[in-house]
Amino acid sequence: MRNVVILRLDRRIQMRNIKLTIEYDGTNYCGWQRQARLKSIQAVIEQSLNKLLQQKVKVFGSGRTDAGVHAKGQVANFQAETGLGLENIRNGLNALLPEEIAVREIKEVSPGFNSRYAAKSKVYRYTILRQETRSPFFRNHSLFIPYGLNIEVMKKAASYLEGRHNFRSFQTQNKENPHPERTIKRLKINAKENFIYIDIEADGFLHNMVRRIVGVLLEVGRGKLKPVQVRKILEANDPRLGGPTVPARGLCLMRVKYPAQKFSLL
Amino acid sequence: MRNVVILRLDRRIQMRNIKLTIEYDGTNYCGWQRQARLKSIQAVIEQSLNKLLQQKVKVFGSGRTDAGVHAKGQVANFQAETGLGLENIRNGLNALLPEEIAVREIKEVSPGFNSRYAAKSKVYRYTILRQETRSPFFRNHSLFIPYGLNIEVMKKAASYLEGRHNFRSFQTQNKENPHPERTIKRLKINAKENFIYIDIEADGFLHNMVRRIVGVLLEVGRGKLKPVQVRKILEANDPRLGGPTVPARGLCLMRVKYPAQKFSLL
Repeated sequence: MRNVVILRLDRRIQMRNIKLTIEYDGTNYCGWQRQARLKSIQAVIEQSLNKLLQQKVKVFGSGRTDAGVHAKGQVANFQAETGLGLENIRNGLNALLPEEIAVREIKEVSPGFNSRYAAKSKVYRYTILRQETRSPFFRNHSLFIPYGLNIEVMKKAASYLEGRHNFRSFQTQNKENPHPERTIKRLKINAKENFIYIDIEADGFLHNMVRRIVGVLLEVGRGKLKPVQVRKILEANDPRLGGPTVPARGLCLMRVKYPAQKFSLL
Repeated sequence: MRNVVILRLDRRIQMRNIKLTIEYDGTNYCGWQRQARLKSIQAVIEQSLNKLLQQKVKVFGSGRTDAGVHAKGQVANFQAETGLGLENIRNGLNALLPEEIAVREIKEVSPGFNSRYAAKSKVYRYTILRQETRSPFFRNHSLFIPYGLNIEVMKKAASYLEGRHNFRSFQTQNKENPHPERTIKRLKINAKENFIYIDIEADGFLHNMVRRIVGVLLEVGRGKLKPVQVRKILEANDPRLGGPTVPARGLCLMRVKYPAQKFSLL
């Protein structure tokens, strides 16, 4: 506390814009977004920041993640008046935050940086555990699939979704976005040991888009749909056709990409 | 229930000895061993077996694991009168067991097989996460170390411990075993990305032996001990010298090895 008082008398103290890269285990949270009476990632980070910086701070995330969804590289920013060094803020936050949330990186950025509007693209990973029996170790971070999957036909189906398309068929039916065009820059499926990773990078995502794309790809992998039918579902622009929506627990926001150096202060 | 009744009338039903390979997340358990008023892995498996097979079943583990210690390949066996197929027992157990415990493999073995006495060696892995900030994802399955470690001197120190020795210096002081000779068949340290894995295979382990060996190796890695001092600690036969005892959460029983085919019924 004594340091804070001394620093507040320092005339160099000004409003700073600070960018955080955050890892979290979303299992026991209602998601990123603040919600009354529920435990959200955003509210918990704000509480820790308020305590650390002794002022009311608002944290802006690059986007919401749903209940149970995880992040290894969620990005958020906040503005605050503080003379504390970046490493001290990071370490102070990690000391105050619960064990399910940690700040992995911290940077000072120019005043115009907003983690949501400045984002160029986001990378999500969906993890599938393909084996005979369920796994206690990976229960909260993967979808367990006991049946066989044909990876090659899944890759074929995925190729129809890359590029700029109207993704209306892959959004939640009652939460439709009036502008459903998005660009999937990369949709890759990799099998490694018992895991199958589905990595999707896009300039933006509609509600439940990743989980409904993965749902369709799994239908293809188990032989219930042919790859070309995925192209037909896409072209139909009908949210009743995509899906099913796979569980949140396999989904993780891996990275948010920004234009190089545009907002850097260094 | 109807199936069980029918099967009990089948004259081929007899006492069978069944071997389970078990994965568990030990975070919220008091350890393997049954303890009054505490939740143990052993008791929870017995409860599920009693329910599935409608008889009182005792489960014998290859050895205890402490509170918070995990397993990917704990082995246990039980004797029961049942006509159920092995796959049905495995799937029935996995349906009844809590999400922190799962049966990965099931086999029928000869009546003389006892998972503890028949074991030839056990393989433990201790996982260290070496990075600047703590990780929500790996919080329950690794020890987070924010300072630098010199892997090469740790490997040198480890080499003194391989082979047959009196490991009195590496057991818990007040739980001394009168026969502290053991053979470490393999003690390997591997770094991969931000993880350091310490794999130890031995014909048996004294109480806290792995966690105290890892504690000493970390002292070497951070420069507080020289590798040759580990040999001196070993030769001193003094349980006050080994350690510190690292936390349980990084420890996992990976595999229990048995003489090939000796107890197989197939």
